[in-house]
Amino acid sequence: MRRWNGWGDDSVEQKLSPEALFFLAEQIGEGKPVPDADLQQVCRRVPDSRLAPHDLISTDPAERIRHSLGQSLPDWLQLRYGRIERVPDGVAFPENAEQVRELLSYATRHQVIVIPYGGGTSVAGHLTVPAATQPVLSISIRRMRRMLHLERESQLATFEAGVFGPDLEAQLRAQGYTLGHFPQSFEYSTLGGWVVTRSSGQQSLRYGRIEQLFAGGRLETPAGSWYLPAFPASAAGPDLRELVLGSEGRLGLLTEATIRVSRLPECEEFHGVFFPDWDSAQVAVRSMVQEKFPLSMLRLSNPLETTTSLALAGHAGLIGWLEKYLRWRGCGQQKCLLLLGASGNRATVRQTVRRAMKLVREQGGVTVGQYMGKKWKQGRFQNVYLRNTLWQHGYAIDTVETACNWTAVKQMIQAVEQAATDALAEDDERIHAYTHLSHLYAQGASVYTTFVFRLSGDYATDLARWKKMKHAVSQTIVMHGGTISHQHGVGSDHAPYLQAEKGAAGMAALRQVFSTVDPQGLMNPGKLLTAPVSDGVIV
Amino acid sequence: MRRWNGWGDDSVEQKLSPEALFFLAEQIGEGKPVPDADLQQVCRRVPDSRLAPHDLISTDPAERIRHSLGQSLPDWLQLRYGRIERVPDGVAFPENAEQVRELLSYATRHQVIVIPYGGGTSVAGHLTVPAATQPVLSISIRRMRRMLHLERESQLATFEAGVFGPDLEAQLRAQGYTLGHFPQSFEYSTLGGWVVTRSSGQQSLRYGRIEQLFAGGRLETPAGSWYLPAFPASAAGPDLRELVLGSEGRLGLLTEATIRVSRLPECEEFHGVFFPDWDSAQVAVRSMVQEKFPLSMLRLSNPLETTTSLALAGHAGLIGWLEKYLRWRGCGQQKCLLLLGASGNRATVRQTVRRAMKLVREQGGVTVGQYMGKKWKQGRFQNVYLRNTLWQHGYAIDTVETACNWTAVKQMIQAVEQAATDALAEDDERIHAYTHLSHLYAQGASVYTTFVFRLSGDYATDLARWKKMKHAVSQTIVMHGGTISHQHGVGSDHAPYLQAEKGAAGMAALRQVFSTVDPQGLMNPGKLLTAPVSDGVIV
Repeated sequence: MRRWNGWGDDSVEQKLSPEALFFLAEQIGEGKPVPDADLQQVCRRVPDSRLAPHDLISTDPAERIRHSLGQSLPDWLQLRYGRIERVPDGVAFPENAEQVRELLSYATRHQVIVIPYGGGTSVAGHLTVPAATQPVLSISIRRMRRMLHLERESQLATFEAGVFGPDLEAQLRAQGYTLGHFPQSFEYSTLGGWVVTRSSGQQSLRYGRIEQLFAGGRLETPAGSWYLPAFPASAAGPDLRELVLGSEGRLGLLTEATIRVSRLPECEEFHGVFFPDWDSAQVAVRSMVQEKFPLSMLRLSNPLETTTSLALAGHAGLIGWLEKYLRWRGCGQQKCLLLLGASGNRATVRQTVRRAMKLVREQGGVTVGQYMGKKWKQGRFQNVYLRNTLWQHGYAIDTVETACNWTAVKQMIQAVEQAATDALAEDDERIHAYTHLSHLYAQGASVYTTFVFRLSGDYATDLARWKKMKHAVSQTIVMHGGTISHQHGVGSDHAPYLQAEKGAAGMAALRQVFSTVDPQGLMNPGKLLTAPVSDGVIV
Repeated sequence: MRRWNGWGDDSVEQKLSPEALFFLAEQIGEGKPVPDADLQQVCRRVPDSRLAPHDLISTDPAERIRHSLGQSLPDWLQLRYGRIERVPDGVAFPENAEQVRELLSYATRHQVIVIPYGGGTSVAGHLTVPAATQPVLSISIRRMRRMLHLERESQLATFEAGVFGPDLEAQLRAQGYTLGHFPQSFEYSTLGGWVVTRSSGQQSLRYGRIEQLFAGGRLETPAGSWYLPAFPASAAGPDLRELVLGSEGRLGLLTEATIRVSRLPECEEFHGVFFPDWDSAQVAVRSMVQEKFPLSMLRLSNPLETTTSLALAGHAGLIGWLEKYLRWRGCGQQKCLLLLGASGNRATVRQTVRRAMKLVREQGGVTVGQYMGKKWKQGRFQNVYLRNTLWQHGYAIDTVETACNWTAVKQMIQAVEQAATDALAEDDERIHAYTHLSHLYAQGASVYTTFVFRLSGDYATDLARWKKMKHAVSQTIVMHGGTISHQHGVGSDHAPYLQAEKGAAGMAALRQVFSTVDPQGLMNPGKLLTAPVSDGVIV
């Protein structure tokens, strides 16, 4: 069953070896486990619903709890400490667009705030219930998950937007197709969620970001339905899909999406490569993308992430031998791990890998075959369960990400890691911060940093620490020319930093667009654009 | 010198052989040359300027004439018959963003309508002077053409937006780079024009459409400056670049654009291929794009365009031999010409061409080497001069284009050609209509149809014929699920058909966005969104 206050299914456990825990203790001290909140107890504290009764709306306290938050660290703090600040007044599970329209019409009639809910995997506060005097309704689209149409000649599939990753891929795979969109949250996130938060998958180098995959769709807005036709390309004015992408619920609910699918590749490989240091690695991967190598993935870890991955992998003996071999080949303390994926027909994959390995060798890199790549592929959606395990051992884990131009990448990594370290140093706490580039472009890369630090055992202290760290890191990202999010979206957590990149005119334009279809401002207020609050009514 | 009422430079002439003229006469009858208007005479009819004097504004009648229209067929009818309906009251040539701001502030103070002018190559009525009681100012950006910055590591170049294609490529080429954006209008269109009309180049298969090349920039709007930073990718809400792309002057003037450049390819090839018929050709090219072959161009002509190209090419003897050979290889009357381009490093080009030719052979296609491809490349920006030559011989030429999914492509071609034929048949005139796919996507293709028909010798008759044809064809495009433009933009000519694809909500959203930065509606009114007119004041 889906875990109510942690990641994923509660029958899945991702163990950490004693060596891994020892490694962490060395880095930042021993963790202090915190007692976990109990769902029954938390439910008893849920206030009465303020919603006028409706057949499609459940006011069951457990449902309301389960839809109150996402997966960001502040969300976890509330869920794990049992300190849930606000819950929606009800949850609806519409089964079709007509029911969505009925719910939006109900919301409009009764001045109810609506929070669209996909898979609940947001790590940026997209689901935060605002402190408003109006009642709040969460609308979950998870029952809308059918494939409506597969159009082979044009490689287009139309799905209801509530379909989860594995379900979507299974339905396509049965017909010989794939979307190829694999974000870390894949198992519990929805197609609709991917679109409205501008999600990016691990193999976007081949398949594209969701922006390239989302061809059109249907929205239900408070002002009515909005259909976006799927053209291969168009010069007919501004591309309105690009307003839906990243709209984070402010326009309404996406009920249907037409996506560009590909035939399943004949062959797929993931290779492990080590470089002597960061600079040599960055030169190699930058060349690969700028020379347009048809790879499916490049994922480059910095030295500390490389060390951490090897330490947490278990198999200490095996890793010991590997490290000896790598040292002998010139990859020591500063070594960086690159995972390199290629998919497609066998001949192209072979030729592409050969070309890539030539660049690797030119930079002193060492290829270690496909074993690590296979392991990574097997565990690609399992690693996120480590959050649960770490929490049980008294550690919090958080991630931030950005994208910036190649000129800024190296400095960005250092500055982000340093900003977090400095922020916690004020409390005399250490932080274990490490980084990888997850998505590479000719122009630059996404920079994805993970922070592990100890829980204090006190909700308020941990929240304050997170806030301080988040603010320091976000400011650093803005200052170094990065976008406030490359793949997680804006939500409430990044909203204060959005104007720095959109400009006053851009922010005004977005407000205007949203108010066109949502004049009462009922759709997910406070997300994306910070909402001025007046007398408890969000405007 | 730039021709005032036709295409390009007046010293360039593209001749038509007697055989070519005979071919046309057979198809649609002999053309009746029409006397050409005289610039001096037209200038004498230019009314006095209604603008308050300003140092940056010229009210010279010849300049005003030269900035009154673009290159669409109705524009040509006005220019060639000397029946220019309206001219701007003045033209300004700002040299920097400060002067642009000064001009916009002047326009705001005096309620002056502003028409941004790039290279004047619009074929969709982007430059039409509205019938308003307010004075109209054309702002040409052609003096803003410097490269401001080349950032090699991130492959980004920043240019002033008024730079013309050849100047931009020359500045980049000197540094070993290319943008790779080659629309047919390349020689006379500007970077800024490409961006705001969503232009697409002939080698977009490799380099991308302008949407993928435009990374960010600076706009001057009546409400102030708007800077869009250049990130490699972002999930920070809707992508505002996508509002600037295709904004067609409604947001203000783009003064600066940062573009994604590539290193000059080591090698570039264009191969000629013939298929026995349309169906076999379509299967082959569709496979190539859906299997993500790293080609730079696929340009597939239908049988009539193939015949026409061969007939107009001259070299009747050579073509005769070629056709005999092709017939022997199974490519007869229904044969279709494909031009296939590949660019990059030599090994990849070789391998890609080899893979492509395998698919060609599987479909019964015949490769004829690189001769035709080379000829095409040499003449890629010269062919458009044929418009002048045809006009001199009494023929009008017009083009329409759309993009649709693969399922619709074949029917779209037939329907568009038929709609134009039927429209002129009412006047007992024949039309020579032929089509190619100019840009291919996994999802579908652009459909680009050329119409040649005889001039009547009477302005009003020719305009009425064009209107009837344009309306019939545009309706057909909409009815068959195509976008109203794949690469020419909306302007005034396509504006009536835009709502069919944007929806009422989309149209309202665009209006809101534009009014955010242009509350008085001074920026290029009537373009993109049709403007209601009230008492001669465009609102």
